[in-house]
Amino acid sequence: MRKVAIIGIGMTCFGNLWEKDMVDLAVEAGIKACKDAGITNRDVQAIYGGSMSGGLFINQEHVGALIGDFAGFKNIPCTRVEAACASGGLALRQAYFDIASGMHDIVVAGGFEKMTDIGGGQAAKTLATASSQEWEAVQGATFPGLYAMIARLHMHKYGTTAEHMALCAVKNHKNAVHNKYAHFRKEISLADVMNSQLVSDPLKLLDCSPISDGAATIVLAFEEKAKELCKNPIWILGSGHAQDTLSLHDRSDITVLKATVEAARQAYSQAGVGPHDIDVAEVHDCFTIAEICAIEDLGFCKKGEGGRFTETGATAIGGKIPINTSGGLKAKGHPIGASGIAQAIEIVHQLRGTAEKRQVNADIGMTHNVGGTGATAIVHIFGK
Amino acid sequence: MRKVAIIGIGMTCFGNLWEKDMVDLAVEAGIKACKDAGITNRDVQAIYGGSMSGGLFINQEHVGALIGDFAGFKNIPCTRVEAACASGGLALRQAYFDIASGMHDIVVAGGFEKMTDIGGGQAAKTLATASSQEWEAVQGATFPGLYAMIARLHMHKYGTTAEHMALCAVKNHKNAVHNKYAHFRKEISLADVMNSQLVSDPLKLLDCSPISDGAATIVLAFEEKAKELCKNPIWILGSGHAQDTLSLHDRSDITVLKATVEAARQAYSQAGVGPHDIDVAEVHDCFTIAEICAIEDLGFCKKGEGGRFTETGATAIGGKIPINTSGGLKAKGHPIGASGIAQAIEIVHQLRGTAEKRQVNADIGMTHNVGGTGATAIVHIFGK
Repeated sequence: MRKVAIIGIGMTCFGNLWEKDMVDLAVEAGIKACKDAGITNRDVQAIYGGSMSGGLFINQEHVGALIGDFAGFKNIPCTRVEAACASGGLALRQAYFDIASGMHDIVVAGGFEKMTDIGGGQAAKTLATASSQEWEAVQGATFPGLYAMIARLHMHKYGTTAEHMALCAVKNHKNAVHNKYAHFRKEISLADVMNSQLVSDPLKLLDCSPISDGAATIVLAFEEKAKELCKNPIWILGSGHAQDTLSLHDRSDITVLKATVEAARQAYSQAGVGPHDIDVAEVHDCFTIAEICAIEDLGFCKKGEGGRFTETGATAIGGKIPINTSGGLKAKGHPIGASGIAQAIEIVHQLRGTAEKRQVNADIGMTHNVGGTGATAIVHIFGK
Repeated sequence: MRKVAIIGIGMTCFGNLWEKDMVDLAVEAGIKACKDAGITNRDVQAIYGGSMSGGLFINQEHVGALIGDFAGFKNIPCTRVEAACASGGLALRQAYFDIASGMHDIVVAGGFEKMTDIGGGQAAKTLATASSQEWEAVQGATFPGLYAMIARLHMHKYGTTAEHMALCAVKNHKNAVHNKYAHFRKEISLADVMNSQLVSDPLKLLDCSPISDGAATIVLAFEEKAKELCKNPIWILGSGHAQDTLSLHDRSDITVLKATVEAARQAYSQAGVGPHDIDVAEVHDCFTIAEICAIEDLGFCKKGEGGRFTETGATAIGGKIPINTSGGLKAKGHPIGASGIAQAIEIVHQLRGTAEKRQVNADIGMTHNVGGTGATAIVHIFGK
């Protein structure tokens, strides 16, 4: 496989962006990424776009071609990929294969979602299409409900507390204060989380990531081009993608996201590194319990220790393994298709040394993007 | 790039399959393809699935993971891709990149759509999400309406007649009689087409492909594995994927599908062949006018001559360049995501010599899969 690097990054603010449509957002992020890479759209040979549900959110499928059209990419392949909330990570991975195969030299991977054009109830129903329609959604299960079941069992088996989970939200909000693209740039206290409205016991409102609009784009290039165009290319060292059952009831232990374990194994193996080599990671914290499961399943701490590990400050900036320095999905926002790409953008900032007040000391970084309750997991490892 | 071959094929019947759901269909096609390849699901290292709109047709996104789950593929990457009616061709292309890059050795590419769970009006509205929601669908434009505009201009510029178009339907229905998987195994006459109900002038009911359920799967392998596992591997010689504006009003000439021209150029160039080298082709005949545009844009006849070329019998079995020997989308049926893969299956049959009463003399074959009114086109060239 040819070596592939990220040479450009760009994103919109995440949030309630009622004055912009999906195309506006995707084009804005794309222009920023091309500018950052020092290229124009004429240099781009293919684009990959991750989006969960143009059909249900904005009544528009065929969004790869749509974005290509409005971004001024003429006559090049524009491919939409979907794996629910892991759609962005999937776009990155397919762009990586495209270049690694030798088909193209410069490829754009983007993610985008316009979620606030429909009401909250309809959005929740749309998000539930990432779970099993026939076994979960049709019973009225929503994502907070499904993750609440994971949380409840984690508490029962491992002694994890509501406060442990809340501390993930407190940390991520603190990080997001220094991220100008974040949906919520506001610190919250442990009491704020604990006193926020119950959504699905034990998850409270501030345990949940928000519904956001947004887009994020990266430009990738093969080795020679990357070195020619870029002073500080960030290399993709490993890529993993695995799956598990769509429904929680089919799993032997719902506190373990087996897809995360397997995707991480693939990525570690390809990169030739282990959990102790990772200096910084963006993990999929759609709910606070998801961050706790992730840091365990990725090998940063033992299974069941995620809550206490968080409590020690190990995952804060300055800690043993800083997690979600961007603010994570929880505070940076979670425009579904964009999240996986925005994770990679944060790692690029950390490895380039451009993360400003969020900067940590890092040579190797990781992204971890999950679809549904873990039916899909995509893990990438990056190096300088 | 590593050489890649098709080593297994399988599909369901296409039609109104009310007793089966999408997962049933996809799994049935997948089992047949694995059996044909002489492998089990444990040999498969990744799957790609093309589907246009699980969200709007059956209220289910994340369908890559869903199919992987029910097909018994554990812990492997399951990727859904979407490019409207070209979703199947896109799944084939991404599977090709995956193997060509060196990431995996045996990969499955499938396509599936369950369209008849919703009513015809709702299905038409869902299909319209492949066009521009903001510039076309919102004005009430449907796909028959959009292709009718293409047909009207083609008639005006080139003297193409309603009879020329109808002859494509007559030919494709004749071919489908010998395809046991086809939605319509029934010959129709020129008079039948001409007297059928007007849908959008000049297109009549029998100028239009049907709404179908169905699934189709192929197994791909890299060179050494293909030779080891398969006596008659069919090689992918070229792959092209291009795009054009999503809306018709943005094009200088709506009778030319520029994405088809460009995707064909890429595929011809990679394969080192030209239109005269193609012995058999499956082209995207969602409407009869689409077949006429396709045979022109792919270079089988001059621009504007497609109608008269069809009238001479050149595109019939036994003609100069047999087109849609399977029955095409028109008569075999058009379960959106499945169509691009089913096209490849027909070409594999033709190159293996297993097309029975549809058999033509062929060393090199082509598939041509279109999304929307030509915002996406994907062309593949195959050889023995």
